[in-house]
Amino acid sequence: MTLPQHVRLVEVGPRDGLQNEKQPIGVADKVRLVDDLTAAGLEYVEVGSFVSPKWVPQMAGSAEVFAQIRQKSGVTYAALTPNMQGFEAAMAAGVKEVAVFAAASESFSQRNINCSIAESLARFVPVLGAARARGVRVRGYVSCVLGCPYEGEVAPQQVASVARELFAMGCYEVSLGDTIGTGTAGKTRTLFDVVGRDIPRDRLAGHFHDTYGQALANIYASLLEGIAVFDSSVAGLGGCPYAKGASGNVASEDVLYLLDGLGIHTGIDLQALIAAGERICAVLGRDNGSRVARARRLGGG
Amino acid sequence: MTLPQHVRLVEVGPRDGLQNEKQPIGVADKVRLVDDLTAAGLEYVEVGSFVSPKWVPQMAGSAEVFAQIRQKSGVTYAALTPNMQGFEAAMAAGVKEVAVFAAASESFSQRNINCSIAESLARFVPVLGAARARGVRVRGYVSCVLGCPYEGEVAPQQVASVARELFAMGCYEVSLGDTIGTGTAGKTRTLFDVVGRDIPRDRLAGHFHDTYGQALANIYASLLEGIAVFDSSVAGLGGCPYAKGASGNVASEDVLYLLDGLGIHTGIDLQALIAAGERICAVLGRDNGSRVARARRLGGG
Repeated sequence: MTLPQHVRLVEVGPRDGLQNEKQPIGVADKVRLVDDLTAAGLEYVEVGSFVSPKWVPQMAGSAEVFAQIRQKSGVTYAALTPNMQGFEAAMAAGVKEVAVFAAASESFSQRNINCSIAESLARFVPVLGAARARGVRVRGYVSCVLGCPYEGEVAPQQVASVARELFAMGCYEVSLGDTIGTGTAGKTRTLFDVVGRDIPRDRLAGHFHDTYGQALANIYASLLEGIAVFDSSVAGLGGCPYAKGASGNVASEDVLYLLDGLGIHTGIDLQALIAAGERICAVLGRDNGSRVARARRLGGG
Repeated sequence: MTLPQHVRLVEVGPRDGLQNEKQPIGVADKVRLVDDLTAAGLEYVEVGSFVSPKWVPQMAGSAEVFAQIRQKSGVTYAALTPNMQGFEAAMAAGVKEVAVFAAASESFSQRNINCSIAESLARFVPVLGAARARGVRVRGYVSCVLGCPYEGEVAPQQVASVARELFAMGCYEVSLGDTIGTGTAGKTRTLFDVVGRDIPRDRLAGHFHDTYGQALANIYASLLEGIAVFDSSVAGLGGCPYAKGASGNVASEDVLYLLDGLGIHTGIDLQALIAAGERICAVLGRDNGSRVARARRLGGG
């Protein structure tokens, strides 16, 4: 058992989290959230998304958020850019790192972004080309890596095929997402074992949802496979769109508690992170999805 | 990585769970719960506790519950008996397996059961003797194995010392309990590694609380250490008395989902277990603490 000595947490609360919260919040609250997160020590924050506010009203104002955050040196502030239009808007807003998003399941791709997996990948080619020309790094996401709400099981080989294309097209890192949270520890290990044959493990990240309570077990399983980058969302922001009211993104606080307990360095301060989560939950008027935050608030050990 | 092929779940909901619920429920509802659990395939249920109802009103009527449940062959129905008086009452009720409960932390022992660890162990000697004479098996619990609400860290060697005494005095199995849920995966492995030097691993069980969301990661870590018996509570019954409103016992459904995903046999039917949990939650008028139950109810994948 050799675990990574350092883990990088990719904070997706301001984007993936807020995008899946019912209630849109204003630019000032988003700016405060991002600044709170970097003050807590997070070195990577996905700040927003450059998409039409007609489709995703929660992501309106991403350019203003980028303009107003206190950019700390050493911190990566990223944006999701699903196409060239979004990429150009992100560049106009001074964004220095972007992300693209594909699915491992054909049905999910069709229903979620209205095109086939191949079409979505083709759409990313000009984005990757333009990014390379401007020296902008691109991170790739693959969703439904351990199950699809429409197809059920998804073969690791299918995930590997999509991840390989993203990597080959220039994504420096590919994050594998258990979008519906049905994955368990053994399948997680198999997944990284299979995908890790094509892509170096230090270029892979894990993105787990806690819908079935399995996220931390899956992260521990991933650590045992040498994975050292994980996406998480402060206060567990973002529900599960496929099981309304259920948990979605694993809470950053809970992941950090696990990593701290394992003696793995992250550079993040748990108390400051909990405070950031409590503040945004108050803004949203929602429960805190972090068990650690709730236990600490309630006087736990 | 070799995982056990079979795991035994020790269902503690009717005892450890209900004892920590604010509202006492009637005998008929307890009987129904136990019968639902064994119908779902559970082979070990801790049914009640023989203690003064003055101190633990939730456990009143344990004798009646034992008299009224439909005892299935091959199922162990156990009771907690903290002293000789409780043991005699359990015998009068026809109980065939009992459990005793010690702490790994001196402060916790003093505050929880008003005596030192040594005194509590001395109190169990006549219980173990009487049990042996009657051919009744005794299971031992050790609490605070990964942290104490009063002392903080607890050394694995201290846990090993208490576990060794229980084992030497005749307990056929010793369950190590993370009472406040602060344990993480690495510490869990170290604990079983240390305690496993004195007691065969097939005589050890894990008892995890999900207060900090770590329970399933800890169970996966325990499985990797060869532990094949886990205590859990249907619907996560039983809060955490040291962090009011926070999660306590890990939910049996969530543990079963993990084990099913790992291909580990338990003989338990998940849907029937979820139904048992939903029913008792309706009786108690409380939320279901199982994420799997909530996700399934809400239409998750």
